[in-house]
Amino acid sequence: MSDTVHPLQPLLHDEIPLTRALGLEVVSYQAGTLTLKAPLAPNANHKGTAFGGSLYCMALVAGWGWLHLALREAGIDDGQVVIHEAQVKYQAPVEGELVAVCAPPPVEAWERFVAMYQRRGRARISLDARVLGEGGDALRFSGQFVLQR
Amino acid sequence: MSDTVHPLQPLLHDEIPLTRALGLEVVSYQAGTLTLKAPLAPNANHKGTAFGGSLYCMALVAGWGWLHLALREAGIDDGQVVIHEAQVKYQAPVEGELVAVCAPPPVEAWERFVAMYQRRGRARISLDARVLGEGGDALRFSGQFVLQR
Repeated sequence: MSDTVHPLQPLLHDEIPLTRALGLEVVSYQAGTLTLKAPLAPNANHKGTAFGGSLYCMALVAGWGWLHLALREAGIDDGQVVIHEAQVKYQAPVEGELVAVCAPPPVEAWERFVAMYQRRGRARISLDARVLGEGGDALRFSGQFVLQR
Repeated sequence: MSDTVHPLQPLLHDEIPLTRALGLEVVSYQAGTLTLKAPLAPNANHKGTAFGGSLYCMALVAGWGWLHLALREAGIDDGQVVIHEAQVKYQAPVEGELVAVCAPPPVEAWERFVAMYQRRGRARISLDARVLGEGGDALRFSGQFVLQR
């Protein structure tokens, strides 16, 4: 971690105002893995744990943000990313800070996605993200994202 | 619609503060169907349409709120409702107000759920919710909720 704010953070805060309400911060983007965090208070529910909708938003933004950064690294900046479908499993409550992580998909899936986009101007990729809990994942998120010109 | 605020609205705002950030309001609970709404501005994304995380939150809260109200009507007030799994499909962008609806599940599924809870103190039910779009559903949400003592 460093004292400088990753440029993805103001981008998210400007373009998706709900990320400010979540208190979302970019922790790091290292070795291809994006890590986000948010405090519990604005995201709490009636049981004093994290609201399931906040967990989903953190995972969704981790996936969207990962794709945004990876595409720029690949020299692709003419596309729009939208979420198409998602499946989530809530496995444990989150009783403190919300930490969401998105790691790269398999290399072959990524290469197929980039090649398809370059050929057709539209491609789809499945990304897994998760929100960490005590001793395991609190939320497992699988999202199918579409990139289109 | 009436000028009085449905009591579910302050309950949601107090117990899940993110619902205030969403600008969520309870429109009506009529004929067993719960309708919620929220303005676009706090829920917008970089394309000026609704953020996918906000659509999910509206549908999740519609499902949770519907279950809360239906359980009280059934005389059950000793359980905690948690979301276990969810599957969502984004079908169209939302370009104005977000309107989320949760209608009752099939009667047999509801009766089985209530009977199971009364016998075992734990039961699971699948609820469908949706966020309306122009000419069809913008988001289809299917959530598996667990009620436990």
